[in-house]
Amino acid sequence: MKRIEIVFLFALVSSTCNAAVNDFCVANLKGPDSPSGYQCKPPNTVTVDDFVFSGFVAGNTTNTFNAALTSAFVTDFPGVNGLGVSAARLDIAQGGSIPMHTHPAATELLIMVEGQITAGFMTPTALYQKTLKPGDLMVFPQGQLHFQVNSGSGKATAFLAFSSANPGAQLLDLLLFGNTLPSDLVAKTTFLDVDQVKKVKARFGGRG
Amino acid sequence: MKRIEIVFLFALVSSTCNAAVNDFCVANLKGPDSPSGYQCKPPNTVTVDDFVFSGFVAGNTTNTFNAALTSAFVTDFPGVNGLGVSAARLDIAQGGSIPMHTHPAATELLIMVEGQITAGFMTPTALYQKTLKPGDLMVFPQGQLHFQVNSGSGKATAFLAFSSANPGAQLLDLLLFGNTLPSDLVAKTTFLDVDQVKKVKARFGGRG
Amino acid sequence: MKRIEIVFLFALVSSTCNAAVNDFCVANLKGPDSPSGYQCKPPNTVTVDDFVFSGFVAGNTTNTFNAALTSAFVTDFPGVNGLGVSAARLDIAQGGSIPMHTHPAATELLIMVEGQITAGFMTPTALYQKTLKPGDLMVFPQGQLHFQVNSGSGKATAFLAFSSANPGAQLLDLLLFGNTLPSDLVAKTTFLDVDQVKKVKARFGGRG
Amino acid sequence: MKRIEIVFLFALVSSTCNAAVNDFCVANLKGPDSPSGYQCKPPNTVTVDDFVFSGFVAGNTTNTFNAALTSAFVTDFPGVNGLGVSAARLDIAQGGSIPMHTHPAATELLIMVEGQITAGFMTPTALYQKTLKPGDLMVFPQGQLHFQVNSGSGKATAFLAFSSANPGAQLLDLLLFGNTLPSDLVAKTTFLDVDQVKKVKARFGGRG
Amino acid sequence: MKRIEIVFLFALVSSTCNAAVNDFCVANLKGPDSPSGYQCKPPNTVTVDDFVFSGFVAGNTTNTFNAALTSAFVTDFPGVNGLGVSAARLDIAQGGSIPMHTHPAATELLIMVEGQITAGFMTPTALYQKTLKPGDLMVFPQGQLHFQVNSGSGKATAFLAFSSANPGAQLLDLLLFGNTLPSDLVAKTTFLDVDQVKKVKARFGGRG
Amino acid sequence: MKRIEIVFLFALVSSTCNAAVNDFCVANLKGPDSPSGYQCKPPNTVTVDDFVFSGFVAGNTTNTFNAALTSAFVTDFPGVNGLGVSAARLDIAQGGSIPMHTHPAATELLIMVEGQITAGFMTPTALYQKTLKPGDLMVFPQGQLHFQVNSGSGKATAFLAFSSANPGAQLLDLLLFGNTLPSDLVAKTTFLDVDQVKKVKARFGGRG
Repeated sequence: MKRIEIVFLFALVSSTCNAAVNDFCVANLKGPDSPSGYQCKPPNTVTVDDFVFSGFVAGNTTNTFNAALTSAFVTDFPGVNGLGVSAARLDIAQGGSIPMHTHPAATELLIMVEGQITAGFMTPTALYQKTLKPGDLMVFPQGQLHFQVNSGSGKATAFLAFSSANPGAQLLDLLLFGNTLPSDLVAKTTFLDVDQVKKVKARFGGRG
Repeated sequence: MKRIEIVFLFALVSSTCNAAVNDFCVANLKGPDSPSGYQCKPPNTVTVDDFVFSGFVAGNTTNTFNAALTSAFVTDFPGVNGLGVSAARLDIAQGGSIPMHTHPAATELLIMVEGQITAGFMTPTALYQKTLKPGDLMVFPQGQLHFQVNSGSGKATAFLAFSSANPGAQLLDLLLFGNTLPSDLVAKTTFLDVDQVKKVKARFGGRG
Repeated sequence: MKRIEIVFLFALVSSTCNAAVNDFCVANLKGPDSPSGYQCKPPNTVTVDDFVFSGFVAGNTTNTFNAALTSAFVTDFPGVNGLGVSAARLDIAQGGSIPMHTHPAATELLIMVEGQITAGFMTPTALYQKTLKPGDLMVFPQGQLHFQVNSGSGKATAFLAFSSANPGAQLLDLLLFGNTLPSDLVAKTTFLDVDQVKKVKARFGGRG
Repeated sequence: MKRIEIVFLFALVSSTCNAAVNDFCVANLKGPDSPSGYQCKPPNTVTVDDFVFSGFVAGNTTNTFNAALTSAFVTDFPGVNGLGVSAARLDIAQGGSIPMHTHPAATELLIMVEGQITAGFMTPTALYQKTLKPGDLMVFPQGQLHFQVNSGSGKATAFLAFSSANPGAQLLDLLLFGNTLPSDLVAKTTFLDVDQVKKVKARFGGRG
Repeated sequence: MKRIEIVFLFALVSSTCNAAVNDFCVANLKGPDSPSGYQCKPPNTVTVDDFVFSGFVAGNTTNTFNAALTSAFVTDFPGVNGLGVSAARLDIAQGGSIPMHTHPAATELLIMVEGQITAGFMTPTALYQKTLKPGDLMVFPQGQLHFQVNSGSGKATAFLAFSSANPGAQLLDLLLFGNTLPSDLVAKTTFLDVDQVKKVKARFGGRG
Repeated sequence: MKRIEIVFLFALVSSTCNAAVNDFCVANLKGPDSPSGYQCKPPNTVTVDDFVFSGFVAGNTTNTFNAALTSAFVTDFPGVNGLGVSAARLDIAQGGSIPMHTHPAATELLIMVEGQITAGFMTPTALYQKTLKPGDLMVFPQGQLHFQVNSGSGKATAFLAFSSANPGAQLLDLLLFGNTLPSDLVAKTTFLDVDQVKKVKARFGGRG
């Protein structure tokens, strides 16, 4: 039992004050994760730097996709633990794209910053696609398969906000072609030709 | 303001008793949906049949997939509204399969009933695959791409439970090949060949 | 800070990829529980067997109830941790029953498999009861007192899905008659006769 | 699209300001309920009286239980809609009690005000019981069967807070003996004698 | 895998019964916190005293505010962990007040016990204020700035219930004037005069 | 009851497919709000423009604050309904600021775009303050009082993401000085001088 006598709050700004305990829960990334997030760092070890992330800059787009994703998820940015929000920066060189992917447990909100991106998501019966320019936002509801293509004449940049501290990012090609799923099983469950499966698999490092 | 005087509970089992109001919320499927589900039917119009679904039987598997999914989602079974659970029955003829698909906002729990099914889900770095027989359960976490193949010598049946009253079911082939997404955009965002895309698109009814 | 450069995803299917971290959280049953579930096993120690449960078979019904419940809750099946779903198998011999009980924090969805079960739940003003056969489902909303009786001429089997990874199961007889609650207190708070209380208490092991 | 130009906030305290829209949602009790609660009254019709409940006074305890429960649930007090909290006042005359009951979807926090109450809840393996006096609190976790007995020499009063805007209150006697559940079915699923069931049923108005 | 054979429940009230595991989660206050609350104490170490708090008595009001707040939050009362409810007792001497404050993540429900309190909360466009007497309740929605003033001729007492196990309590004066926020920054972001800021800061212990 | 026979999905991309129903819920802003958000528009009336917001541009900063907030909340952007995320754009002219304010039920994530902003939030015992430049993010946990000041030599721009579709924005000055709260009550509950209160009240339009 503890009594907060307010005079104490004045006199010593008492360290026994439990008021701030649950207002935030900065992740202790060295401890285990749980369904609700990481354990909290002891409040007296928290500093403003836990709430600030300073590497939200353009990634290197010299790769197969001509694109880069710079993440500020809880594992990068412990202050967002338990708060249901995180961010990423998307840079796509001319001609590049972020291929089909999902975030299994997060909605994505895209904020256009520079250039032009054609983005969309699909349901079994509809395509929701738009060409976006600076000043535009687009929302991709939780778990939907979606894509972003640089459809402009220079590089394109967007900021992404997510409704989860750890949204993940599952590229369809890696799911289908980047692991040990046998080619004939991929073919059977996607209606693609086995030759096609093997060809793409060679590109994405799949074995089996 | 209302006072529940318990004497009333005895004397007349009063219909003004609000005790049961929120214990369930049977869907009024004629009204609008909301983020938390459908509006509740007036409690005095609810009957036991709202809580019972009676068509959980084998579907017709004479189709392209040699498979059938019989759903008992909220739109079929209004009693599950707001309760975070629903079900489906899966029948797969010999040689058939449920191709790659996701449930954007629900975990799936598969209960084997008859025959043999090889099922799995993938992350970017791992394949979790197993051959299942009666007596086995398998769980597919929320939003993960997964598949089920009849790998036995007869028909196979499984019951599915979901962690949502309306889990949806998004077949990858329909998302990629069943709508108006242009073939070259599919190719660019999946690394498949355009010819392959057009071939599968013809099968799944995609236009554009 | 960490930058996911997509080239790395291709080149080495990098183990630093945090994409999969929160997509599931397999329970470490040796660690402590929390309000949201158990701590997660390190992702690199997770195997497909964490997502598969293989003892979903008939229990021994040679007991007072002529019934058996085989559970696949998180403590039996660590893969469901944090996913809001679990299952159980119900076997009731002819003449047997699952007596009145509640799941304090879970809705139950019953899938009939074999035989005939008469099941129901009650509110202060209504009884929702039905005789169920294979092909029927019934939902018992969260926290409601309910029962299942084998009302057929042979054995009966049902599969149960729950809206929680750890639904519990509180048999009313054990709550009232299986612990140290004094007989006169039971009588006073249930309006049963003290003699009746003592008689049932003898059967269910209650002391005091 | 709407732009909140802060100068407007100063100049006219604009009615187009959407800032307050979701900070509360006072129930429109004439409209339908939903799994998350009632629809919101239009914000411009909300007054302070929606947030105040004025009948939190002693109920009439001249009844079978010698007890009264005065509720301030959402149906009595529309301001608590969607806020996850409500209250009730408990008055128990000498010798009276609130018999065994559950709140299917709410935790109860009891605050002793006057007199002496012996209260408890049970799990299948334990009894958690205590005699409480003014200055004591007791918490009854969600969905647990519990009771309160006036164990003192005068009247007793307690205030109850709930973790739900509409916690319900299911008296065990009404569930078992107050509806149309047949006596032999009650006996079979509770292990009580049929004669006892019929006797209590006569008292609680059960038919069938 | 574990099978609950009900016969065991009878025979030995088996300690392997996992039924009660998640029905409550008493806080282990020595372990780390998480976004969903503290880790659970092992169930076999839980006693009724974890669910009872016994210091809900008047605090010392001889202080600057002529008021005292006695908290029964999770850090005082481990049984409420994960249950979404807690309480506090408010005592205000004649002429005293609880100044402007917020609970960042909890709704407050005030139950008047003795005396007279004028309480209110504000939105940018409205004031919701009322003078309350015993028999009155008032609800302050989550995160709203609010105050309580003893407007009667003697002392006043109220009980507070919260929709969180750890609601916090942020006094506006401490936020603005009790830490190291520079006076000119306070002035700039509140439109108060710097002299006024320095004057109040001297009272509340702010530095810088 | 409805059976989804997958052959139908192929053959006619049937409009009776309920799979996509709950994957999103675009707000019908003409209907009532509820605790979980607005009612859903009928799925067949949803277009891509519901998921796109096109006015995310600089607001007019010629005002008392030298600042502008352009919101993309659910009332501006119906596609975010029920998805737990929204956004705003912040423009602050040289010397301007966004004064002390809270979002009662949302965490804010600030993404720096241009210029320099000094931002912070306070607990009763700590100040978390940082000077931010492009490439920096800062998170303000739910319900915390915070501020943003242009501390650079030109204009500053930031994008804000929120963990709620309708985060609100409560400027402290409007809460204290912009409504009908009497000056002496403000003084009593803030420890400010009455003269100061009246002076600021004149500026913010408060009456009473």
